[in-house]
Amino acid sequence: MIDVYELAGADPALRFSPYCWRIRMALAHKGLDARFIPWRFSDRAALPGGPANSRVPVMVDGSVTLADSTAIAFDLEARYPNAPGLFGGPGGEAHARFIIAWADLVLNPSILPLVAADIVAILAPKDREYFRQTREARLGCTLEAARSRRRTLLPVLHEVLAPVRAVVQHQPFLGGEEPSYADYAVFGAFQWARCVSDISLLQPADPVGAWQETMLDLFDGQARSAPRAV
Amino acid sequence: MIDVYELAGADPALRFSPYCWRIRMALAHKGLDARFIPWRFSDRAALPGGPANSRVPVMVDGSVTLADSTAIAFDLEARYPNAPGLFGGPGGEAHARFIIAWADLVLNPSILPLVAADIVAILAPKDREYFRQTREARLGCTLEAARSRRRTLLPVLHEVLAPVRAVVQHQPFLGGEEPSYADYAVFGAFQWARCVSDISLLQPADPVGAWQETMLDLFDGQARSAPRAV
Repeated sequence: MIDVYELAGADPALRFSPYCWRIRMALAHKGLDARFIPWRFSDRAALPGGPANSRVPVMVDGSVTLADSTAIAFDLEARYPNAPGLFGGPGGEAHARFIIAWADLVLNPSILPLVAADIVAILAPKDREYFRQTREARLGCTLEAARSRRRTLLPVLHEVLAPVRAVVQHQPFLGGEEPSYADYAVFGAFQWARCVSDISLLQPADPVGAWQETMLDLFDGQARSAPRAV
Repeated sequence: MIDVYELAGADPALRFSPYCWRIRMALAHKGLDARFIPWRFSDRAALPGGPANSRVPVMVDGSVTLADSTAIAFDLEARYPNAPGLFGGPGGEAHARFIIAWADLVLNPSILPLVAADIVAILAPKDREYFRQTREARLGCTLEAARSRRRTLLPVLHEVLAPVRAVVQHQPFLGGEEPSYADYAVFGAFQWARCVSDISLLQPADPVGAWQETMLDLFDGQARSAPRAV
């Protein structure tokens, strides 16, 4: 059995980390069973690998312990080659690195200011000060000031999503006819917002929204049925 | 023999279109010989397919005529399956669509204001008014005003390149151990600037610069030896 440590809210059923969602989707894609163990920012010592491993998801699979979603995805692909592929071959693996980097460095930071104030409200009380301090330093303002700028930030997000929009207007998934880990890397950002906030990130007719709906339905609606704070 | 119609400057040896450079690199990658025919914005009637085909590159290969760099790349991959692959398989093809869209919609527009005033100066005189009008409409200012904002625009470009930087710090090429069409899609933007301008797009220690140097050396330095306006 694979163990995955995931960020949880005050309600342990609330699992909203965009990086943890990537791995939830990847495990479902590969048909691998896993136990998802709630973890909170203030629980550092409880993570396998000790205090050096301070980020989730952490995966423990037999003798393998890994603490980075990208490393976990590539590891699963290598160690479970007979399960459905996450990348569509070597070229797919290489090119996915760009899409993952774009999600990490462009997409997630575009969504953080829109949802950070909602996140702090659903965290375990002992996690709130850590989250507020680190995220306000990153945002350069209070979480509430960031949220108050949503009328400015949402059009920027819509523009940021232009390459996703172009691709899903051409083919069903970033992975082509079937979803790939690239889809999960991008979808994690939407699921992060969906689990913690009632904000509408997209305009009603945005083709990215139709793609998101399809992603929510995958694997018997795994993401759609996930607990939400709202 | 494959014919490729390319945008040229007043000097017909000057070939600087980022989209044409993608196809130059792709043809060299596949080891396919081609004749590169100079074309100018004001030469619309001279393009195969007639006035409806108003964009270069246009490729004519036997009975196949195509007028979009992305369509040409996927067509070459399909019709020359025994030549070296441009995408690394189906997953690579699917994921490359995102990188191409990013280069089209994010990277190239970030470079246009930095080089547009240099481009107009090297165009054939009969092309200049068309270029100035269309690009000033796109930029929302004169070409010279855009260039004068380079101290503001260059740091934005450096941030735009963050996903490229992350990938080339991890692996030699966007395509992995070997260059793929994703590399050519991104490199086209750099070659566009290199052929028309003496602007330094990157800071000296940027890992993207090391990648660009490697790209310039590919195929016996095809891109490095290309004529420049400066």
